[in-house]
Formats: sequence, structure tokens, C-alpha cells
Amino acid sequence: MPVVTFLPSGRSANVPVGTSLLDAAVAAGITLSAPCGGEGVCGECRVQVASGAVQCVARGCLSPGEVAQNWVLSCSSRVTGDASILVPAEQAVGAAQIVTAGKQAGSPLPGHGFGAGEPVVVKQAVKVPMPVLGQSQSDFERLVRALRGDGGPEDPRAGIEVFRDLAGALRASDGNVTVSMTAATETAPSEIVRIEAGDTTGQAVGLAIDVGTTTCAVSLVDLIRGHVLGTAADYNGQLARGADVISRINFARTPERLAELRGLVLETINRLIDRLCSHHAVVREHIDNAAVAGNTTMIHLLLGLNPDFIRLEPYTPTVNRTPPLRGGEVGLAMNPAGVVLFAPSVGSYVGGDITAGLLTTALARPGDEVRLFLDIGTNGEVVVGNGEWLMACAASAGPAFEGSVVRCGMRASEGAIERVRIDVTTGEVIINVIGGGRPRGICGSGMIDLLAELWQAKLLDPAGKLNPLVGSERIRPAEGASRNMAYTVVPARDSATGEAITLDERDIQNLLRTKAAVYSACGIMLKSVGLGFDAIREVYVAGGFGRFLDLEKSIRIGLLPDLPLDRFTYLGNSALSGATAMLCRADARENVVGLASRITYLELNVDPAYMGEYTAALFLPHTDLDRFPTVKAALAARADRPMGESNVSSSL
Amino acid sequence: MPVVTFLPSGRSANVPVGTSLLDAAVAAGITLSAPCGGEGVCGECRVQVASGAVQCVARGCLSPGEVAQNWVLSCSSRVTGDASILVPAEQAVGAAQIVTAGKQAGSPLPGHGFGAGEPVVVKQAVKVPMPVLGQSQSDFERLVRALRGDGGPEDPRAGIEVFRDLAGALRASDGNVTVSMTAATETAPSEIVRIEAGDTTGQAVGLAIDVGTTTCAVSLVDLIRGHVLGTAADYNGQLARGADVISRINFARTPERLAELRGLVLETINRLIDRLCSHHAVVREHIDNAAVAGNTTMIHLLLGLNPDFIRLEPYTPTVNRTPPLRGGEVGLAMNPAGVVLFAPSVGSYVGGDITAGLLTTALARPGDEVRLFLDIGTNGEVVVGNGEWLMACAASAGPAFEGSVVRCGMRASEGAIERVRIDVTTGEVIINVIGGGRPRGICGSGMIDLLAELWQAKLLDPAGKLNPLVGSERIRPAEGASRNMAYTVVPARDSATGEAITLDERDIQNLLRTKAAVYSACGIMLKSVGLGFDAIREVYVAGGFGRFLDLEKSIRIGLLPDLPLDRFTYLGNSALSGATAMLCRADARENVVGLASRITYLELNVDPAYMGEYTAALFLPHTDLDRFPTVKAALAARADRPMGESNVSSSL
Repeated sequence: MPVVTFLPSGRSANVPVGTSLLDAAVAAGITLSAPCGGEGVCGECRVQVASGAVQCVARGCLSPGEVAQNWVLSCSSRVTGDASILVPAEQAVGAAQIVTAGKQAGSPLPGHGFGAGEPVVVKQAVKVPMPVLGQSQSDFERLVRALRGDGGPEDPRAGIEVFRDLAGALRASDGNVTVSMTAATETAPSEIVRIEAGDTTGQAVGLAIDVGTTTCAVSLVDLIRGHVLGTAADYNGQLARGADVISRINFARTPERLAELRGLVLETINRLIDRLCSHHAVVREHIDNAAVAGNTTMIHLLLGLNPDFIRLEPYTPTVNRTPPLRGGEVGLAMNPAGVVLFAPSVGSYVGGDITAGLLTTALARPGDEVRLFLDIGTNGEVVVGNGEWLMACAASAGPAFEGSVVRCGMRASEGAIERVRIDVTTGEVIINVIGGGRPRGICGSGMIDLLAELWQAKLLDPAGKLNPLVGSERIRPAEGASRNMAYTVVPARDSATGEAITLDERDIQNLLRTKAAVYSACGIMLKSVGLGFDAIREVYVAGGFGRFLDLEKSIRIGLLPDLPLDRFTYLGNSALSGATAMLCRADARENVVGLASRITYLELNVDPAYMGEYTAALFLPHTDLDRFPTVKAALAARADRPMGESNVSSSL
Repeated sequence: MPVVTFLPSGRSANVPVGTSLLDAAVAAGITLSAPCGGEGVCGECRVQVASGAVQCVARGCLSPGEVAQNWVLSCSSRVTGDASILVPAEQAVGAAQIVTAGKQAGSPLPGHGFGAGEPVVVKQAVKVPMPVLGQSQSDFERLVRALRGDGGPEDPRAGIEVFRDLAGALRASDGNVTVSMTAATETAPSEIVRIEAGDTTGQAVGLAIDVGTTTCAVSLVDLIRGHVLGTAADYNGQLARGADVISRINFARTPERLAELRGLVLETINRLIDRLCSHHAVVREHIDNAAVAGNTTMIHLLLGLNPDFIRLEPYTPTVNRTPPLRGGEVGLAMNPAGVVLFAPSVGSYVGGDITAGLLTTALARPGDEVRLFLDIGTNGEVVVGNGEWLMACAASAGPAFEGSVVRCGMRASEGAIERVRIDVTTGEVIINVIGGGRPRGICGSGMIDLLAELWQAKLLDPAGKLNPLVGSERIRPAEGASRNMAYTVVPARDSATGEAITLDERDIQNLLRTKAAVYSACGIMLKSVGLGFDAIREVYVAGGFGRFLDLEKSIRIGLLPDLPLDRFTYLGNSALSGATAMLCRADARENVVGLASRITYLELNVDPAYMGEYTAALFLPHTDLDRFPTVKAALAARADRPMGESNVSSSL
């Protein structure tokens, strides 16, 4: 089978000849936006053929110039042999790619891509005979009989919403209807969740939802063709009520405030759903399936469950393995009788975002090779293990890399600085802005770049203090009464907001605390099982940094351990990918429950060594430089290079 | 075992020595109001010992005069031998009794009374161990483990409301909680519907609900002790939108109007529930069980289902066998996760009120003795059959006997004239008023009495015309422009409203149409199976006439067939009794489904003989007097008696 490699990520997939590039991308774990559903009309799924054999069936909306430069529509192009495909930066929103490491991701979804869906709620088209005088069979009785005749369930249940639609649907289409229902299991009967006039079995979309403390993301997924139609993300509306889970729990101390938090996150998620539905012309009441991944506190707040005992020792959630619920009882903008699945939590501080994320990794793969999974979200969670054992812990990382807490931080959306380079000779700052316009702030990947570059340029010392003695005009006292210094990344005249984009020493301390929490959690976790970092075969990095993560710079600041780059895989929003897998695949739903039950939870707070490890990691990259041999070598090289007077950027 | 007979109904039960009179009444199918729950403090369950051996444990609130006259509290009196007990008229609200026939009712609820309940949702008290640091078990996991240890379900489900209460309930009582849940079946898992702090297994109340076209009635039932705590009834708020099912269906032709009708009936039912809950100090959210009986249209409107195809040929309901629903989705004032059962319908015009009502009869009892069941509500339904076959039909009777349509008609509540006697010599009218005060109107039993007495006194001719030639001052032209005559039952100065209570010829025509529809439906139905009335071993009469029904007078006007009185049993509100049985007993729930599936529905409208039968029955008692030999004989006797000039009541 031909190998198709996608650049710049380097992810690849073996696919049969004739596969569309869109499906090949799915198989490689890359989410291409295809708003028109692969009809070849919107042009949004365009990619550039770097090399190899691709047959282009339709070029539709491409310009002659684009055609000349080998741009094709991925939905309308077929693989004929090995090929390299360049995915443009504006594509793959919500999907994350590796910049530095030239390494293929592990199997992102079990079995490569999710293929034709196996959602919980499936459709069956059926012809129901019209009623006959004197037989007094109800509509529902005739429907059930017809379903049974077509191999459907024996004695399905139905809720009130289904009965409300039934009479109209049957009569709108001469008895031809499509029934959305769950399959019967050994212990539960089949349940009908929706009836629709006509045969709509060719259409079925579902929702994958990542409820993050800082950011919520929703994917609209075509369950028939098994691909993501589009993804939308936004800050969690609860941010107004606290940046991290503890402050949210503290806020939720009355039933009214708990209800307020529930309303805020529902408003965020439902706005995203509505945006996707309107863009893709989907009626939200036609969505029968959803899968939700979120940390334990976020799930409690989404469901309106009292989260207080998550905060209080012994840190007890109401429920870890939330059973399937109805769209209506959760409050989601979908079929109220539709089914909402939840990724199971391990405990109060290792939630469904982690178990779902693990679905996109090889951690639980049979064998004794040890792998590490880091999720650097608002909390930092670390999982280590192999086919025999799995262990997890949580560190209060703080939402610094998600754009919260840091003053000029922002989510990886239009206007975010996602990459930063400082010319050590001139001091000039070169930035990449998402969307290409004027910058509004800095997202996670930009923060990592900035820290690493500032330090590389000797503008920052290992303790996170800016060095005014270098003479850079970009370093000035921060605004306000504090004695902090601040570094100007973009002057006011060049920013989209009219205010300068700066990073001050308080912001830097927040970033250092986050990276120290993550690194030290990894160290303690490995130590507890008698391993060092070098025992790790593979490191998966998940988190809302943005679209790209520079691994080398992440190591340079001490966020990630100093290991060969080819051992790293950046997963991006793995919670969302995992929720998508649960939405689409029965084996993923089974695996995630198995994963959750296998994980042993380690309470970091009770480990006396943790505080020392954490404090040592508060420096750039670490107080113990021997742990970062590559960085140490680079430092030695840097020491030879002078830092001149010309360090002022030409643009300042 | 001693036999306890209750007067005036004559119903009796064999009960062990030591049984309380309250329980003996239940066993005899008589509902005594016991607001205090049998605590001996409210005094409402007082009865008079007519003869026999009763040991009175406490006399509490009885006066010395009452004690001297052998009044006892039924809750605090024990049976020691055979006894006759007189139930006062103000007791047994909602329960109906036979006045004329000295005959014991059949087994009103399977197995005599409903005994200790077997509701769908049962309670289990359990001690849940408190969480331990480092085990990261959720509250729900610990609960399920504890339940399982106490013989509870293996893998119960739970909805969002249960999770919301769980953390608080566990911590309010050191882990001692009571779990309300359904039992697991072969095809469905156990489902937890409520968690409560402490051990509340000694308390459980449920709701039996009769949704009538004209009147709704609700019983609050003690499921532990198996008796009715109280019953409340009121007109269905939908009456403002049409008197019968067809006009309601016509009204409900837009979704907004359908929603309005749903809201109106829910408002009526929930007001009754609230009234009962407040009287009996029950928290409505603690009600986990409800059973509803209603005709097919009423159930559709209650659930917000489009009823239009019930009206249109071939008369097809959306659902006959409504599955158990949640209190919240139905909209009832109870635990939103609680379970609401529905008595199954046979078809569009033989509904769950009939199948529930049949539970209180011996129609389906094994054997070939044929029995007849008449429900004279807003619609008239007739069921005939035996252990081998059952057949049903519906007649558009109209709500005349329920107090609607007839101008001075009213429900059998305070102020209703429930019995009428006209002195043939003086013309004086003697009335019984419910509650004993001034009359406000006439209920169903009063209407029957009035028709029979007017005709007996020759004030009314067989076609339903009042005879002004008799010279009664009570017969005058009706108000308004019509040429109708009207009969004054109570003059303005004696009525509670200040307006005279009269019956005019239009009212009389409505009553005749109702009785003709019922009688002719019986006749056609029997003819269709080749039987005459004399083949009937037993006739059950159900309907909202009031507390008493005078069978002799009902036969005299041709409402009931002319059979020996001991073949009749008046059931009163059998739909409510049947719903109570479903609420309390597993065998009743099984039987009602079996009954519904066994009944063959006969479409009267397509029978060419029906119209002739109906027209012949529009007279008093019937055009064919030979069908009413007893009445014919009485007529002959009446003919000998003169009707003098002294026919003016002294009170007019």
C-alpha cells in the first residue's frame, strides 16, 4: 500500500490506492477542515502536493495559479502511489502538529483514523404500513413490528420526545421513516431516541466535546464517512469565575453559584455547537450522539454536581464513571433524547480528559516498554506506564500556557503570536501571527519560544529576571507600582489592540511555576516506580499550546525532559481526539473504561520529595544542569558568543 | 376468619382477628380517608359499629356522645369477630358505594385490598463507608459497592438528579442513606431514582392519577401500609377548551394549543397533588412512584402527543401501551427521576381508564360466565366478556352525568345535590346535599334521581318533555328565547348561589342522549356476540356520578338494563382504583397489560344497526317497554294513582 506523508508534521499512513487524500489524512491522525463534507465545493480542504503520485479528480474552486503550484482539493484527490503532502498552516485548526521532531505520531485513534462510524445511536430506515380501520394498532406498535421485521430490536423503549414526533413523521412520508436508536445489550433494551420522516441513514453527525478549565473545544463529526467536519473552540465562560478548578469549586459554594457555573459552560459549548451547525447546515436536534471529555471538576460543574468534596481531603468526586446521559438532561444543544457519553475519570485530579487523551497513545499497548503522557493544560497531569501497569498524578500547573493568567496571553486563535525568534545579533523580534494580521497576544507555543529566546539571548537570567543591564530598549519597568521589569514583544503601534504586547517578570514567574510543576511531577512519578527519564521509550505531549510546539525550545526552558527529539510526539488537544474516538468507535469506548480502571492514582501532595523537586525546577532549565546535557552544551556554546550593543530591534 | 360487612354498601371482607377496621375496609375495597395516616389523632376515619364485636383501642378525638352511639376510630379498632360497620356519608370521598343493591362488590383489587405495596420503585437503606485518602473511589462507586454487599443490584444506572444529591446525602448522615430504585429485570438494569440521607424505608407514598375528560382525581397512597391517605378531585382545566375529546382534539390543532392543553391538565393534576402533599405533610420530590389511568386522548394531551389521528379515520393513536416515563418528562409534581406508569389503551376510544377499571372487576376471571362493564364518563365505554374472550366498544355519551353540559350540573363535591325524591302526593322535592349546606348544583346521581322522579310523578313524558298541564308551579318556560320548559329543583332563595337550580328540556335531552348511547352500545355489543342482556351474570357500573348511585332509578330511566339488582355492582371511579392497584401491586401491572392485549375493539360507527338502537333508546325508559318488564309493571301501578292539584311543594 502507498505511504502518504503529511508535512510539516511528518505523520503518515499506509492507505490503499484510490483513497482520497482527506481520508488518508484522517488515517494519519490529521484533522483537515472540510466544511462542505467532502463535496469538492468549498475549497477549504486544499493541500499542496510536495512530491509523489496523486490523481486530482476535481479542482473546483482552485485558481489557475494554485493549480500550477500543485494545490489540490484533498477530498477530490486519490492516492495512486507514495506521496508527500504539505498541509497549509490555516488548515487543521484544532489539530496539532510537531514542528521540530521529524517523527510520526503513534496510532492516534485505534486502527488508524476512525473510519465509518460505530456510534452508540445508529439509524435504521424502515417502511411502516399505514393503519387499517378496525385493527386499532397504534403508530408505535406498527413501527416496532416493522423494525422487528427488518432485523431491528425486539422490544425497544422510547421516551416522550419520540412519541411526540411519531405521528407526524409516519404521515409525512407514507410510512417511510428513519429510526435513531441504541443497540440492545445483554442488560439493557434498545432505546429509540428519534424518528425522522424519509430515509436519512446517509446522514449522521455527532459531537466530540472537550470541556477544558480554560478552553472548550467542539468537533462536529460526520459519523457515516468518519471524519471531522469542523472544530470550534473558545474560552470557557467560567473563566470569569476563577482561572483554575480550585477557584471554581470555591466559587460554586451555593446552589445558585453552582447553577451559574453550569450555565456559563453550557453557554460556551452550545455557542460552539450552534456555530458549527450553522456553518455545516446541520439541524442541532438531529444530533443523536455526543462524547464529552473533561477533567473531573469540569464534568461535575457541567452536570451541576456539587464539586466541594473534590477540593477537600480525601478528594472524592461524586462519580468517576459517569453513565451515558440524555442530551436534554445535560443541557446540550442537540436531540434532547440523544445519548451523551463521558470519558471516565480516575479520580478527582485525573479526569476524563486524560483517559480520553490516552486513547490516542500507545501507553497501554501490550508489552513492557514504558511510555510517558503529559497533559499540560490548566492542571498538569502525568501518566506513565506500559502494557502491565499505569500510574498517574496531577500537578497544579496553572493555565499559563493556555493564555490565561499571563497578561498578554491568549488562546491559539486569530491574532495570537504562535512563534517567536529573537535575533541574538540585532535583538530584532521575528514573530508568526495566526491568521497573518497584526498580533493581539501570545499563545502557549509563543510563550515557550519567547522564554527560550529571551534566555538564549541572555535577556533573561535562569531565575526568570529580565536583565536591564544588557541595554535592550525592550526591557523597561513594568506598568504599575511593582518593581517588575517587562519585555516589549510588540510595540503599541504594531499591535492589533493599540497596546504594546509585553511580558513582565510576574508573567515569567507564572510560566516558570507551570513548567516546574509539570517537570517535577514527571520526575517524582518516575522515581516512585524506580525509573529515570532515560527509561522512557516515548513521550506524548498534550496541551492547548496552539497549533505547533517547538520541542527543542520546550526542553531548553526545562518544561520537557532532555531526551532525543524523536522520542517525543506532540498530540495537541488529545482530549478532543479521544472524545472523537469514543464518539465513533466501540473499541475506543471499551478501551477507555479499561484504561481508567487500570490506572493507579499517586497523590503528589503526600510525597515529601515533591516540594524539593518543584523548587529545583523553578529555574531555566533547572538547578541541576546535568539533567539537561543538550542544553548545558548549548549554554557553553552561547557563553562564547558576545551580546553586543546592537541588541535593539530595528522595529522598536 | 371473621366477616366484616360495611354499610350501606354491603361490601365485606374476611380478615384475621386483630385486623384494624381501616385495613378491613381496604380489604373490602372501601377507601376510608385517614389523613393522619392511621395515627388515631385526626378522627376523620370514624365509623359506627352497627353490630358485632370490635375492640376499640383508642377513642382520641371522639365526643362522649359519639362513644355512646358506638362510634369508633377505624384506625384504632381491632376486629374480634363478625361485625357490621356503618360508614358515614361524609367518609369515603372518591369511593363510591351501592345504595340499592345489597350486594358485595367483586374483588375490587386482586387479592382483596392492596396490602403492603410492591411499587415499581422500592427503597433500600444502606451504610456507605466514608472515602479514604489514596483510594480515589467516587461516592457513586462506594454506594454501588455497598448496595451490592447488601444484596442490591449488580450495576445500577442513575440519572443526573441522583448524582446531584449524592455527595450531600452521604455526608449528611455518616454514609447512612436510603436508595430508591427500580428492580433489575432480564432486559433492563436497575435504575436509582433518588438518594436520601438516613433510613427512610418506613416511608413511601405514591400517586394514583385518573385523568378524566371532565374530572381529574388523584389519590395519595401509603405504599408501606397499603392504604389511601387521601383523594382529591377537580374539573380538568381543559374544560375551558371543549367538553369532550373531539372538541379538545379540534382545539389542539397547533403545537401552541396542544402545549396549552397539556399545561392545563398538568396544572389541574399538580394542584391536586400539592393539596394532598400539604395536607399529609409529604414533600412532593419524595414521591418516586405514580400510576396514571386515562382515556387515549387524555394521555396524548397529557404527554403533548398530537391527538389528531385519534379523530381521523382509521382512528390511530400514537401509542397504546405507553412505557414507564420519568416524573420530570411527564411534568408531574413529584421526583423528576421517579417512575410514572400508564394503564395501556386498547385503541383510540377504549383507553387506559377502562383497562385500569377492569382490574377492579371479575371480567377476566377464568371461566365462561359473561360479565359486563360500563364506564359512564364523558365517553361511554362498554366491555363484555369472560375468561375466554373480551370485547369493547365506545359510545359518545357526552359528559352530562359528570356535571358538564347540563347547566346546573356539577361534580360530586360540596354543595352538590346527590339524591332527589319528589313526593308524588305533594309535589315536594326532598334533596340530599353533599356537605349538608345549601345546594349549588346537581351531580350525576342527583340527575338520575331527578329524571326518574319527574317521570314517576308524571311531570315528564317518555320523550323528555315537561308537562305544564300538570299544573306544577315548578314547571315554567326556561329563560332565554327558546320555547323550552324548565323545572325548578331549588328556588333562588334556597340555593347557595342565589340563583334557582333548574333543569330545562335541553338539559334533559342531553341526559337522554347520554343514557341512550350507553344502553344502545351495550345492546349492540351483546348482539354482536349473539347474547342478550339476560346472559349477563354480573354488571359493573363505573362513572363519576357521585358517591351513590341508585340502581333502581338508573334502570327506571333506561340507563341500565332491567336485570335483578343483585347482578349490579357500582364501582364508582374504577379508573382511579385500578391505577391504585397498578401503583401498589406487581400482579395488577401484569394483569392490566394482559387485559389490554386480550380485548377486541368493536367499531360501533360501522355497525348499521347502531343508529336504530340508539334512537329507540332516546325515550324513558325505551320505545320497547318489553325490554324493561320491572319498569313496565311499575308504570301499570302508577297509572292507577291520580296526580292531584296538590303537586306544589310546600317549599316553593
